[in-house]
Amino acid sequence: MSSLNIVARNSKVFAAQICRNQQFGASNRHASSSAKVGFVGLGNMGGHMARNLMKNGHPLIVFDTVPDSMQAIKKEGATLASSPQEVASQTNLIITMLPASQHVLDVYTGSSGILGSVQKGSLLIDSSTIDPSVSQQMAEESTKVGATFVDAPVSGGVNAARDAGLTFMVGSPDQSFGKVKEILDKMGKNVVHCGSVGTGQAAKICNNMLLAISMIGTAETMNLGMKLGLDPKLLAKILNMSSGRCWSSEVYNPVPGVLDGVPSSNDYQGGFGTALMTKDLGLAQNAATATQSPTPLGSLSHQLYRLMTNSGYAGKDFSSAFQFLKQQDKK
Amino acid sequence: MSSLNIVARNSKVFAAQICRNQQFGASNRHASSSAKVGFVGLGNMGGHMARNLMKNGHPLIVFDTVPDSMQAIKKEGATLASSPQEVASQTNLIITMLPASQHVLDVYTGSSGILGSVQKGSLLIDSSTIDPSVSQQMAEESTKVGATFVDAPVSGGVNAARDAGLTFMVGSPDQSFGKVKEILDKMGKNVVHCGSVGTGQAAKICNNMLLAISMIGTAETMNLGMKLGLDPKLLAKILNMSSGRCWSSEVYNPVPGVLDGVPSSNDYQGGFGTALMTKDLGLAQNAATATQSPTPLGSLSHQLYRLMTNSGYAGKDFSSAFQFLKQQDKK
Amino acid sequence: MSSLNIVARNSKVFAAQICRNQQFGASNRHASSSAKVGFVGLGNMGGHMARNLMKNGHPLIVFDTVPDSMQAIKKEGATLASSPQEVASQTNLIITMLPASQHVLDVYTGSSGILGSVQKGSLLIDSSTIDPSVSQQMAEESTKVGATFVDAPVSGGVNAARDAGLTFMVGSPDQSFGKVKEILDKMGKNVVHCGSVGTGQAAKICNNMLLAISMIGTAETMNLGMKLGLDPKLLAKILNMSSGRCWSSEVYNPVPGVLDGVPSSNDYQGGFGTALMTKDLGLAQNAATATQSPTPLGSLSHQLYRLMTNSGYAGKDFSSAFQFLKQQDKK
Amino acid sequence: MSSLNIVARNSKVFAAQICRNQQFGASNRHASSSAKVGFVGLGNMGGHMARNLMKNGHPLIVFDTVPDSMQAIKKEGATLASSPQEVASQTNLIITMLPASQHVLDVYTGSSGILGSVQKGSLLIDSSTIDPSVSQQMAEESTKVGATFVDAPVSGGVNAARDAGLTFMVGSPDQSFGKVKEILDKMGKNVVHCGSVGTGQAAKICNNMLLAISMIGTAETMNLGMKLGLDPKLLAKILNMSSGRCWSSEVYNPVPGVLDGVPSSNDYQGGFGTALMTKDLGLAQNAATATQSPTPLGSLSHQLYRLMTNSGYAGKDFSSAFQFLKQQDKK
Repeated sequence: MSSLNIVARNSKVFAAQICRNQQFGASNRHASSSAKVGFVGLGNMGGHMARNLMKNGHPLIVFDTVPDSMQAIKKEGATLASSPQEVASQTNLIITMLPASQHVLDVYTGSSGILGSVQKGSLLIDSSTIDPSVSQQMAEESTKVGATFVDAPVSGGVNAARDAGLTFMVGSPDQSFGKVKEILDKMGKNVVHCGSVGTGQAAKICNNMLLAISMIGTAETMNLGMKLGLDPKLLAKILNMSSGRCWSSEVYNPVPGVLDGVPSSNDYQGGFGTALMTKDLGLAQNAATATQSPTPLGSLSHQLYRLMTNSGYAGKDFSSAFQFLKQQDKK
Repeated sequence: MSSLNIVARNSKVFAAQICRNQQFGASNRHASSSAKVGFVGLGNMGGHMARNLMKNGHPLIVFDTVPDSMQAIKKEGATLASSPQEVASQTNLIITMLPASQHVLDVYTGSSGILGSVQKGSLLIDSSTIDPSVSQQMAEESTKVGATFVDAPVSGGVNAARDAGLTFMVGSPDQSFGKVKEILDKMGKNVVHCGSVGTGQAAKICNNMLLAISMIGTAETMNLGMKLGLDPKLLAKILNMSSGRCWSSEVYNPVPGVLDGVPSSNDYQGGFGTALMTKDLGLAQNAATATQSPTPLGSLSHQLYRLMTNSGYAGKDFSSAFQFLKQQDKK
Repeated sequence: MSSLNIVARNSKVFAAQICRNQQFGASNRHASSSAKVGFVGLGNMGGHMARNLMKNGHPLIVFDTVPDSMQAIKKEGATLASSPQEVASQTNLIITMLPASQHVLDVYTGSSGILGSVQKGSLLIDSSTIDPSVSQQMAEESTKVGATFVDAPVSGGVNAARDAGLTFMVGSPDQSFGKVKEILDKMGKNVVHCGSVGTGQAAKICNNMLLAISMIGTAETMNLGMKLGLDPKLLAKILNMSSGRCWSSEVYNPVPGVLDGVPSSNDYQGGFGTALMTKDLGLAQNAATATQSPTPLGSLSHQLYRLMTNSGYAGKDFSSAFQFLKQQDKK
Repeated sequence: MSSLNIVARNSKVFAAQICRNQQFGASNRHASSSAKVGFVGLGNMGGHMARNLMKNGHPLIVFDTVPDSMQAIKKEGATLASSPQEVASQTNLIITMLPASQHVLDVYTGSSGILGSVQKGSLLIDSSTIDPSVSQQMAEESTKVGATFVDAPVSGGVNAARDAGLTFMVGSPDQSFGKVKEILDKMGKNVVHCGSVGTGQAAKICNNMLLAISMIGTAETMNLGMKLGLDPKLLAKILNMSSGRCWSSEVYNPVPGVLDGVPSSNDYQGGFGTALMTKDLGLAQNAATATQSPTPLGSLSHQLYRLMTNSGYAGKDFSSAFQFLKQQDKK
């Protein structure tokens, strides 16, 4: 596993279950497979996502600030736009995949942004991971000009984006979810309706906060047990048959050698970088402050990943928390 | 589930696996089923354990400081001793089940303690949850007088003790484990050899530390998600199909109404009390300090459970962390 | 001391020192004492501040959303405006004192906000405690319309506001500071130039973050020492003659009976409320996240004050952290 | 200042005050200046302390496990003993200065320990910084053999030991304090009676816990303020005139260049090492666990200093917390 497969191994079972659940909408055919789609943000994730739409027969009109990304996809048949605003003038179905809240604000409400020329009845799907309150703000602005904005952040890494294996967590009005699901199904395998706008972001940052907590917790626990004389594989086995088990202990153990094919057994290369986890934990903290929710362990996990980011671990997989904790005196 | 089933629902699968593993010893018949067993400590757990030995045909000689506990088991056929020392003079196979390190020190090395009259070749099995270094100290003292001391703390609560369903985590010399397993098999369903003396305690406190971290983490995450507008059952489902899943989110969710039959849906009655979790976390902190292992989240979890114990939650199940976090201004 | 005297007892000495320091500007006579001043926000603090300007001969034009506050000050001679925009149309020197970032955004950039009719060359002084990045955003917007915005949050509570004893921490361009100081001198005794716009807020939230940390730290330490058998007055004396001393141990000790005249000796009434401290710590956390600065203790202090706010301490002085930590099992 | 002057600059003022306080005993002449004194532990601190006794005319009988330390002091006139037991057989006034609890247990109750041949009526003064419960245990054992044990840990570093400038925090029975003070006055300038046995240790670890909290708090705050654009000297000045001030911000600021003559301005050389602070925080945590006292910030400070000790900061002054927090990505 060279990138973070954020959905657990048993997700197929759950996905099957989910389809029977009324909250997870059935596919309605609002968007014909030949509908033109706008796509803004052709980075590591967005580039793959856009190509999966083309593979499914959707003509694309795209924008990115990086010229090389634009030229590459043009060769594969996409039409280039000179701004998000131009994208919006050409299609009523747009997907955005951007690094952070500030970029979303700019792409939607900036001087050459989408909302400057959006068509009435447009569906705007933002798959960026950002502050839920920014999603809600964009939805309000969109409503004013007659468009529908939904948040649909993803879990799953670059490989899942390439293989159309992403999970989308969607915050959207009920009546729009069918159409949202229809297009996202072309790029992912799970499309979960979480509630009204912003709840997709909420679900994403909640999951990642608990993931960070249990990863650091697993790292601490494994390190303590080893210092107390326990064999790490045996300790992992005991935890996993007991109440201490979690995804991080079972599927993504941070101790080198306990599991094959995870970043910890590959010098913490690949996977989900510490800097990205730190960013998501920052969003969780902002949301916790805004809603006055106490999150003592989430908050401390944020601080520890911040320290790691400042101490040389920014580009390593987030399971390198184990290495950070056990490091010996180097000075 | 009215008491903490610390081993996850899939433990039977794991247990089957474990039996094929050479570290988990097969049963050797060193102790005939009619061997007399000494038992010191007849509390909520010990009383049930002792009775399970009697059901399996073992005559018992027992000691406890509570006269009622003594009289009750006497009626069921046990012989009473006037001190741990007297127990040791009557049998060479003794099990102890005591509240804390101090009691173990007293029962073994006190003025009328076991080591005062222990027979050479005796096997002394301590199932208390105590400081691993105290276990090691007791083992050293026992060796001096020709006896073997092993630590074998349990997971599983009162019901598991009654139903012979406990899991024992054993720290013992390799050559003693077969005999240890033979007798513990009468009181539990899993007997795991963790390594040398002290590692049983180590495994126990490691598991409970990670359990505490993931329980508080789950409580924080569920509370934050709900404040952000997510339905708790839906959020639990999303976490459990994703990388945030852990035993606390899946099997023992702390939010009332998400799962049936867990303490959170019964006003946090039953289960594993906050005060007991706090005690175990104190042992983990002592072990972490002694081995110079950083445990930032384990340490903060200890402090939060300490605060809860001081704030009216001592007798509630440890999943009441959710209630502690979400409580509203009462003033 | 019925309100928080956030500046230490020796502040007069420091203030004298400060005046000789070039960073703390001397008074230039840009604003004659009869200049008309706009004032928006007539709450507990703002009401006193506005009245102090009137006492110094400044005619006022005011706005507040609470009619009673408006009527009361009208009787004392102030002119009422129907909106912040109207205030801006009547004077080029405006002071705002508002509860939080959202109100500042609204009062300056809302549909009837100050910037809608501000005069070129106006000086806009915001004494609210808000996110430094919002101050910077307001300064940018003001520059676009030819006005100068500065942040000047205060320390000192209601009594200091009434007695013109506030300390102002000012973030302003160098060339504006003289004029800022001249008007703020009418309402306070210290006016400190912290640097460019936003640094006034930065200084305020930094001070309060360290205050929160050392207050909780003092509460923990006093409680631990008392549990270890130390007399609280003696322990305070030892700390205060040693390296553990801080403002909270010396001037504002959180243990009832150690000092007279502080909230801890008055059932934690008066002083600086826990809910307000929690708000300031939220600002500090947002600033730390935005600047990627690790603040592990500041972050945990925020969480602890959040828990206190949720547990019945919202209206008590923030030194009630001692009571929160030591409370005994009430259930 | 090349070593930690743990008592603040104004300690002389306080010391004068203290002498007028009945809790700080006046000197009684129980021990004539020619009394022979036993001294065990001739390390960095103990060596200086012993020499100060000789300078005051006390013949010494000494023991240390390091032969060179023994030979050096022999040349200066001390008599050598072959064990702590031999020291006890030669004098009834003994001072011990040892690294940790385990050494104290060994020197007093080991097979060739002091209590093996102590004379009735002996006064045993332990200046080690250890677990208060170990001090209490030693006092009990001493009482059984007719001797008096008191704890008298010091603050002040190697230079204060050399210059007879230490502060002693004494836990002793009231009736023994006069005699204790008389001898300790030869090695220090403040001798504070904290209460019964163990309270000297309690005062020491309480002070150091609050010191650690406020040092990390100061480091976080200074770093955050600087990232927000504040000049560090100006920020320190603002904190020190406000409620955020503490010994660490005022006297021992951790930011290089803010103060002269402190370790932060000398690459964190000298001072009070991070590893030693970590040890003291471990004692504080053990005491907090034993007394069931919540210490959330003390506990997190312990963990952070543990991480620093593991990350190359063990030998640096504890104010290097600033460097640990601000370090940039080195990878």
